[in-house]
Amino acid sequence: MSVISELVAALSPEKVLTDPDVTDSYARDRTFLEPGRPLAVVPAETRQDVVATLRWATEHRVPVVPRGAGSGLAGGATSVEGCVVLTLHRMTAIRELSPADEVAVVEPGVITADLDRAARAHGLMYAPDPSSHEISTIGGNLATNAGGLRCVKYGVTRDSALGLEVVLADGRVLETGRRTVKGVTGYDLTGLFIGSEGTLGVITSATLRLRRAPAVYPATIAAEFTSLRDAAAAVAAIIAAGCQPSLLEMLDRTTLKAIDDWRNIGLEAGTQAMLIAQSDAADGPVVAERMARLCAENGSPFVAVSSSEQEAEELVGVRRLAYQAKERLGKCLVEDVCVPRSALPYMIERIEAIAARHGVLIATVAHAGDGNLHPVFVFDRGLAEPPPQVWAAADEVFREALGMGGTLTGEHGVGLLKRRWLALEAGPVTEEVHHGIKRVFDPLGILNPGKAI
Amino acid sequence: MSVISELVAALSPEKVLTDPDVTDSYARDRTFLEPGRPLAVVPAETRQDVVATLRWATEHRVPVVPRGAGSGLAGGATSVEGCVVLTLHRMTAIRELSPADEVAVVEPGVITADLDRAARAHGLMYAPDPSSHEISTIGGNLATNAGGLRCVKYGVTRDSALGLEVVLADGRVLETGRRTVKGVTGYDLTGLFIGSEGTLGVITSATLRLRRAPAVYPATIAAEFTSLRDAAAAVAAIIAAGCQPSLLEMLDRTTLKAIDDWRNIGLEAGTQAMLIAQSDAADGPVVAERMARLCAENGSPFVAVSSSEQEAEELVGVRRLAYQAKERLGKCLVEDVCVPRSALPYMIERIEAIAARHGVLIATVAHAGDGNLHPVFVFDRGLAEPPPQVWAAADEVFREALGMGGTLTGEHGVGLLKRRWLALEAGPVTEEVHHGIKRVFDPLGILNPGKAI
Ligand SMILES: Cc1cc2nc3c(=O)[nH]c(=O)nc-3n(C[C@H](O)[C@H](O)[C@H](O)COP(=O)(O)OP(=O)(O)OC[C@H]3O[C@@H](n4cnc5c(N)ncnc54)[C@H](O)[C@@H]3O)c2cc1C
Ligand SMILES: Cc1cc2nc3c(=O)[nH]c(=O)nc-3n(C[C@H](O)[C@H](O)[C@H](O)COP(=O)(O)OP(=O)(O)OC[C@H]3O[C@@H](n4cnc5c(N)ncnc54)[C@H](O)[C@@H]3O)c2cc1C
Repeated sequence: MSVISELVAALSPEKVLTDPDVTDSYARDRTFLEPGRPLAVVPAETRQDVVATLRWATEHRVPVVPRGAGSGLAGGATSVEGCVVLTLHRMTAIRELSPADEVAVVEPGVITADLDRAARAHGLMYAPDPSSHEISTIGGNLATNAGGLRCVKYGVTRDSALGLEVVLADGRVLETGRRTVKGVTGYDLTGLFIGSEGTLGVITSATLRLRRAPAVYPATIAAEFTSLRDAAAAVAAIIAAGCQPSLLEMLDRTTLKAIDDWRNIGLEAGTQAMLIAQSDAADGPVVAERMARLCAENGSPFVAVSSSEQEAEELVGVRRLAYQAKERLGKCLVEDVCVPRSALPYMIERIEAIAARHGVLIATVAHAGDGNLHPVFVFDRGLAEPPPQVWAAADEVFREALGMGGTLTGEHGVGLLKRRWLALEAGPVTEEVHHGIKRVFDPLGILNPGKAI
Repeated sequence: MSVISELVAALSPEKVLTDPDVTDSYARDRTFLEPGRPLAVVPAETRQDVVATLRWATEHRVPVVPRGAGSGLAGGATSVEGCVVLTLHRMTAIRELSPADEVAVVEPGVITADLDRAARAHGLMYAPDPSSHEISTIGGNLATNAGGLRCVKYGVTRDSALGLEVVLADGRVLETGRRTVKGVTGYDLTGLFIGSEGTLGVITSATLRLRRAPAVYPATIAAEFTSLRDAAAAVAAIIAAGCQPSLLEMLDRTTLKAIDDWRNIGLEAGTQAMLIAQSDAADGPVVAERMARLCAENGSPFVAVSSSEQEAEELVGVRRLAYQAKERLGKCLVEDVCVPRSALPYMIERIEAIAARHGVLIATVAHAGDGNLHPVFVFDRGLAEPPPQVWAAADEVFREALGMGGTLTGEHGVGLLKRRWLALEAGPVTEEVHHGIKRVFDPLGILNPGKAI
């Protein structure tokens, strides 16, 4: 029996896709990285499918690339030569949703926004909201420890995960964590899997924490600034005043220009940056006024404050246009450095200088409250991948961020894309430990080889 | 040269304490567990002391028991025969406190409350506040993932830790995490060390997250209930209404009786439970009134609401008396189960039934908002350790909690005390994984052997 026919025997013919047109469509995420050719794609429908696939893979030493929606920006789900892509997107059951315990138990293929909607039917919400929430899966969010717009107030995916069910490389099933908010029995294995980018095990179920949904729409402001430093000072003032914004985003002029060219938002000539902030507190409108005042005090010549849900949506809508506006300009390398909040203005200035020096278009948005910047490097649509000057500029951006005490990736992960910079951040002891841990869970190295560590 | 004289040579004579009177005083934590005899006690003053001690210990295969203040309730710092107790309590520097980044970098021996006070001088706070905060160290808090009264709103120690410096068993120095709020480069090693009870490495520095301190004193209520179910229903109502209490504690009648006998709080004959709740929000007094109303609606015949800081202190002061009041009755085994919040009333009822059946005095306080209960088993002061009926009752309490989807320990840790129940919660795959991870960090098994896993 061929290797593949053994897999078919362990699963069923419909669950082993080998038509190259089909397998190709599961080979990439949202990066331009050239994937290896998958042997097959397995769309798992049950935990048992995952167990059978991994047992088979262990027996035959076949690499397995776990996959959610393939919306990743780091190449974590990029297929490797001769692998099986194990996609979880069909496992979409919300097994339980308990308003009393504020907990949901879900399969990994549930779309992030679907869980949030299900929770809202009970007055609850699922807080982590990556901008990709309408397409990304919970499994992918867990495996990358996804952030989002609300995480300035509610934390990242890690902060909403209580427990996991994980299938290990050899098919053993591990349960981590618990259903309670607190618990310290044993090592924090839940945390270890979160952000491990499919290299330690395949998540087949998650117990997630829900939170009370705010009763009202978030009061929203948008403030224009004629200098980046002013905008950054306003961010610092908003945090220092204890406003606890539920969203605090910054857009640079290049981004605003791209949006303006597309949708005409009336961008002023002198505007260098825009801050968008929300408060979902009970006294949100009061907090919004206070944030608006702090923006004005820090030099904003113009601040809009929402007075209705529709106005709030319009103001925050500008932020939502950012990514598509840039994609109109060319292909995009979306980066993801994070720096201590106090370094935010310097980091943005460095990015501008680097862009100028290399003659590269870099448009930056930032989750300003967290110091997490997304410099987007725009390059010629005709190219298959970023040209050398883009990589040279990106390299400098990474080094600057690390030099400020920051990190290579705030929320997207290392994947395949950023492995060559990893050693700059993780010293040799860290690397030894990473590989030691990897061997505990995956001694044959079949799980997502070449990624993350 | 003898083994100890080699240690003296690597450190200095004042840093190697061998006088049995001295070493005995570092052999126990707050449990009654009989310690093994330490070979020596090393009060480290620098990271280099820790490195030298661990290199020496690795060379000579000497077990090392890391120790903070010894306030632990699980026997984590109980010394083992022939070990070196490596105490970090002299490393008390707050190396940095950055209001701009809301971050502190501290040595492990800093007393929890001292860090909080240092932060308050800048309008910030260190949120985790175990009841032991005036004696416990940050290192001990990290190693146990300590909880506290405020964690219903601000989370446990894990939620305030950004990065660590850890010395591994062989003396290598590992830096985990970062200074930024977000970051996903590599595995979550910070989380792995937190709660690992000194079995994976010795924490020599921590980068911690601070938060804005509330501007006002927390508005406080205390509500009496004639039934536990009513009190539990009030807890559920307070959470469901989105009140976000910054403290939500429940005391059972046995606890209240012990406090009343000591300090006369005017306990009514029919009172079965008391809820104490605080809100530190800007509109705290409004929230407190709402919580008071919810208590009344759920059957509380009497609710006190603070109208001044002093009154607030008096109301919450009752909770602070709980532990000492019980110690007046005899020796105490302080337990720490955690159940899903909806199971809280059932768990308390089970505890009462178990107490009656075994003829054991059990007084329970609960961090009610988190479902974390501390049933305190009181036994005869003449006994060196808990008598069999106390262990029999504790055994039933643990099993009940696990049966409800709960955990053996919400915040105190497994230590030595709860190892015999560990297998009930952690299945065989978890145990294999625990030991695999332990081997990565400590292949010779010299770090706190016999603890936690
Ligand atoms: C327009 C756009 C906006 C975005 N905005 C954000 C944002 O705001 N914040 C943010 O954090 N990210 C953002 N992203 C990136 C991406 O959406 C996230 O990384 C997301 O978490 C990936 O989920 P996915 O289901 O698509 O996972 P995939 O891309 O399929 O996989 C991501 C990684 O997870 C692993 N994986 C997937 N499922 C499992 C599983 N069940 N078990 C084990 N490993 C698994 C894969 O092997 C891979 O390493 C954005 C992407 C796009 C295209
Ligand atoms: C009256 C009282 C009230 C309490 N209330 C609470 C509470 O509300 N919440 C709560 O969670 N706990 C509480 N505790 C328990 C205890 O205070 C906590 O577990 C605390 O975190 C222990 O800190 P410590 O410095 O005393 O550590 P120790 O008791 O000395 O050690 C605890 C564990 O940490 C390890 N350790 C210590 N320092 C280090 C280090 N630097 N590196 C590596 N490992 C280390 C030890 O080996 C041991 O396993 C209470 C205890 C008492 C006596």
